[in-house]
Parts: sequence; C-alpha cells; structure tokens
Amino acid sequence: MTLGQAYDPENIFSKIITGTIPSVKVYEDDDVLSFMDAFPQTRGHTLVIPKAAGATNLLDAEPALLATLIERTQIITRAIEKALSPDGIRIAQFNGAAAGQSVFHLHFHIIPVWEGHMEKPHADPSSGMADAGALEEIAAAIRAAL
Amino acid sequence: MTLGQAYDPENIFSKIITGTIPSVKVYEDDDVLSFMDAFPQTRGHTLVIPKAAGATNLLDAEPALLATLIERTQIITRAIEKALSPDGIRIAQFNGAAAGQSVFHLHFHIIPVWEGHMEKPHADPSSGMADAGALEEIAAAIRAAL
Repeated sequence: MTLGQAYDPENIFSKIITGTIPSVKVYEDDDVLSFMDAFPQTRGHTLVIPKAAGATNLLDAEPALLATLIERTQIITRAIEKALSPDGIRIAQFNGAAAGQSVFHLHFHIIPVWEGHMEKPHADPSSGMADAGALEEIAAAIRAAL
Repeated sequence: MTLGQAYDPENIFSKIITGTIPSVKVYEDDDVLSFMDAFPQTRGHTLVIPKAAGATNLLDAEPALLATLIERTQIITRAIEKALSPDGIRIAQFNGAAAGQSVFHLHFHIIPVWEGHMEKPHADPSSGMADAGALEEIAAAIRAAL
C-alpha cells in the first residue's frame, strides 16, 4: 500500500524534523512542520509534512493525519498567496518514485506560479540547491503573513 | 482569496453533480462525488469533488470540507492502485488559471502514472475527449476495488 517503499526512519525529512539537517522553517506545531523546499521549482516552493514518523505517502497515512495536513496546507497556502502574490498555486503530493516522490516521508508541495515563469524540474539537483539566505527572506515573508 | 474567480453556480462540475451533464462515476456519498476526468492525462485519471456548491478551490474551502475530501481521495487512490497497478500516483489540486485550474469548483486530481508512458497535457481539448465506454470500463474496475 505504499507503492514499493517501506518507511525508512533515516529519511531526510526525519533528519529535518530532529534538526540533524537544517531547514528554513515556515510553520511548526505539535503535529506539522512546514519548510522551504531546498530545490525549489519556483520562488516560494514550500513543503508541509507530519512530524510523526511512519507515513510514507498518501496510501499508508492515517486519515486523521491527512485531515490535519491538508488543513495546515490551506493555512500556509493562504499565507503564500498573501506574501508573494502569485498568479496561481499548485498543490501536489506524489506517491511512488514513478510519480516523482523522492523522499518517502508523507509530504505536500505548495508551488506558487507566475505567468510566463517556467518551473524548474522537481527535486532536480542539477538546478542547484537554493541559497539559504534567499530562502530565509521568502520564509520570513510567508511567516509574517500567517 | 480565490486567485481571481468568484464561484459560478453554472460551472461544469455543478452540472455534473445535478446530472445535467453526464459523467462516469467512481464513487458517491452525501458529501463527495468522484468521476473519471473526461480529458484524462493518463489511464485512470479521476477527480474528487465536493457536492456542495461554493468552494472555488483550496483557498476558500471550509477546513472540514478539505478533510472530508482528502480522506475520500485516499480511499479512491487506494482503489485505483489496487485496480490498475500503476507505478506511481500523483495527487494534484490547482488554484487559479495560471496554476492549471480550468473548472472553478474545488477538485482533487488523482493521476496514476506508469514508467515510460508520457502524460497528456492537463485539460487539453486537442487531446480529444475520452471514449465514455473506455472510461466506464476503468471506472468499473476502480469501483470493484473500493
């Protein structure tokens, strides 16, 4: 029920939750963490994840956890709209490597888009990791709009 | 808060809910309707929508409605996995025309993908409307897996 991957407690998002790997945070509560994607497809590309270990993707998540995540995703999406004034916002959630899932800890993508601006490919290391200072500036604007 | 569109009660999904426009149904209950996308990006492309009028997209939806929708989306996604055995499944939800939203009634896309099969563009009339008989065959398989 997870499209081919067991939950690996050493996945990169687990390490972000514990702080072993740094992240640029947008929002945090007891259940949910939101931070800037380090390989953003667009300016403001943000992730929303559960802090609890165990759910690989949509298929194996507890329904109540999905409810919590989508509600927080709405709150953060509204803040991104307010802070960055994009022309549109895509929500995406990938299940299985063939669908573009690169980290096997449940997550939702919030991807603001602007007319005439091309998106970069998803999780493409060749695009280069974003500058942490630039991400922090965007995250501060989103946090201020929450 | 809706990226530029007021809710239009005459939108195409409203007409699908009332039956004015036909659809190939996968699932229905008091709150939610799920049916095959008439312009599928892949085999098995399915939509999940609230039956109540009013929500244009994620930005203006009631949080409880989002929770209901994502929980039903999970149930239907699991059935699609079981029925069609895709290599991966994308969940997508678009806000604003610039993000690819073409109908301004809140909806989630469930898009199964297979390695080596290209997806068609989203809501592209030039790809042609799917054959209703072919969609019904896929929908019957998904319904049987629910």
